[in-house]
Amino acid sequence: MSSDADGAPARPGGRTARNTAAVLDATLAELGDSGYAGLTVERIAARSGVHKATVYRRWGGVDGLLAASLARSREDGWAPRRTGALRGDLAALGHEVVLGFTGSDLRSVPAAAISAAFQSDRAADALRAFFADRHERSAAVVTEAIERGEAPAGTDPCEVVRAAVAPLYYRLCVSREPVAAADVDRAARLAADAAGTGAFVPPAA
Amino acid sequence: MSSDADGAPARPGGRTARNTAAVLDATLAELGDSGYAGLTVERIAARSGVHKATVYRRWGGVDGLLAASLARSREDGWAPRRTGALRGDLAALGHEVVLGFTGSDLRSVPAAAISAAFQSDRAADALRAFFADRHERSAAVVTEAIERGEAPAGTDPCEVVRAAVAPLYYRLCVSREPVAAADVDRAARLAADAAGTGAFVPPAA
Repeated sequence: MSSDADGAPARPGGRTARNTAAVLDATLAELGDSGYAGLTVERIAARSGVHKATVYRRWGGVDGLLAASLARSREDGWAPRRTGALRGDLAALGHEVVLGFTGSDLRSVPAAAISAAFQSDRAADALRAFFADRHERSAAVVTEAIERGEAPAGTDPCEVVRAAVAPLYYRLCVSREPVAAADVDRAARLAADAAGTGAFVPPAA
Repeated sequence: MSSDADGAPARPGGRTARNTAAVLDATLAELGDSGYAGLTVERIAARSGVHKATVYRRWGGVDGLLAASLARSREDGWAPRRTGALRGDLAALGHEVVLGFTGSDLRSVPAAAISAAFQSDRAADALRAFFADRHERSAAVVTEAIERGEAPAGTDPCEVVRAAVAPLYYRLCVSREPVAAADVDRAARLAADAAGTGAFVPPAA
């Protein structure tokens, strides 16, 4: 069992848990406000009401805070929406991706984390783990589609998920083009149709 | 006709042209070495041998230099490789994308420009123009495939290009996963096959 700075046992609802939640909430809020370039332990400590020295001791610095915030989001209970069909499920995933970028301002949390990964290996590692977890959870909609007979057994579920969201991230992060609802739906349709033809069954070893 | 700082006519091979080339080469080299976060007019001026005041006067600052460097790359004569078939052409494009990220160090120029766009609207505008130009030039391989009967008339050539490269940029820039040759080839195959079935013909208005 972990313990807080005074050696007291850490338990849900205890002081350590409350401090952790306050600091990681403040990290995401600062990231959303200022992006990775504007992230400082001083501002996060001030926003959270937790002492700066405590923040440095527990998380080491900005990179540790970002990694812990992304790691925490893996425990957030997120699950993909179900529509009853693979194409609809993938479109719902895609619309959620786009909303994560455009729902607030340009310096949204996902954009900030993707940006941070260009500047910090630790942030890149945290982002990789975050997306591995999201792929894994999103893959449930493909596994269920296989069970319904919408795609053949042996289909790689994570690869179907990547195919549905990659064109959206490409426009948002790389080519910097607007993403229309039709772009989301086309990406979902292409991925679902390709899955239906067995295009995501890896070649036999 | 533009003129240099002394009012002399700018001509290819003249001093202004030489200075421009030296400064923009230095910008890309600095970007490759240090990324956008490490880019300064001082370092670019020192590397290029052009006076700092001249650099400030002509380009305004780091964002203007980055935009001019990306704009210049649109005049570089780049053209997509031809293999004789759409799938091969798209795979060649994809392999070139991956090489641009992994051919040198992690802070490659494309990665630095994509990273810069998260931090600067001017860099984002320059990146958008850069990719619009690349899509346009790459689209030639799709137009030729339509002429050969590999895809129906009305196919959106740029959308086929996006489909072929998006899964690679997604792994490189977003999910931070390694890109295997098989990933490049699968993305090219999926895009070419979908194009062949008319999947990139926009619905009638």
